[in-house]
Amino acid sequence: MDPSWLDVAVEQARAGLTSGGIPIGAALVGPDGEVLGRGHNRRVQDGDPTVHGETAAFRDAGRRRDYRSTTMVTTLSPCWYCSGLIRQFGIGAVLVGEARTFHGGHDWLAEHGVRVQVLDDARCVDMMTAFVAERPDLWNEDIGVAE
Amino acid sequence: MDPSWLDVAVEQARAGLTSGGIPIGAALVGPDGEVLGRGHNRRVQDGDPTVHGETAAFRDAGRRRDYRSTTMVTTLSPCWYCSGLIRQFGIGAVLVGEARTFHGGHDWLAEHGVRVQVLDDARCVDMMTAFVAERPDLWNEDIGVAE
Repeated sequence: MDPSWLDVAVEQARAGLTSGGIPIGAALVGPDGEVLGRGHNRRVQDGDPTVHGETAAFRDAGRRRDYRSTTMVTTLSPCWYCSGLIRQFGIGAVLVGEARTFHGGHDWLAEHGVRVQVLDDARCVDMMTAFVAERPDLWNEDIGVAE
Repeated sequence: MDPSWLDVAVEQARAGLTSGGIPIGAALVGPDGEVLGRGHNRRVQDGDPTVHGETAAFRDAGRRRDYRSTTMVTTLSPCWYCSGLIRQFGIGAVLVGEARTFHGGHDWLAEHGVRVQVLDDARCVDMMTAFVAERPDLWNEDIGVAE
């Protein structure tokens, strides 16, 4: 894993924010960092609660027969939904931009053999910190925290 | 949970099979069994690996603020991806048609406070048993079992 792989996910997160959505982006990359799929959260844009950054990137990569050599790159620690995706499809590694504003299932993934690296990237931390402060309602909706 | 709630999920699974796909169906229902969303696996039909029965039903139910009183009804034990969805969004209960042909994350969900009932429904068992025997390649692709 190369920390520079995070750049594509950050671009996606910014695109999500610019289009009025939740700033979480992701990319599924191959062994040499080639981008197989990319995407960002589209809850707001599509009115679709299933489109997290990671599921968008996974969808964009199309149907595949083997994910072991791939890495899910995401700006934020993956929630249980996205962690479950990574585990079920045998994605080999996860590169996480930050786990400071949200701590999802990345420890669980590591326990189950997924290679995990958490970067604590300032771009990701700053973007999510500002977003959570501005739109706590939308953020809580996206992670299933009821009022 | 009423076992009859499974009927909608079975209808969905049959619709998936008829349209050339993987026969797994689901519904998200409210406290009195009212159907909030329904769907089936569409990997084949849409070329989209993110559309499992449960995620299709969840999407069909639209954006919601609180899932605690809802039940995810599914013809088959939910895989880690769909189990993660159920846990993250705080869906209160899961009604499983069968866990004989595939044992997913329903025990893990029960450990984390989700009410779980497994029916061992003959319609579900027969449909999946036949499908797995006929299309092991497609089934393995759908659950991330590499060749």
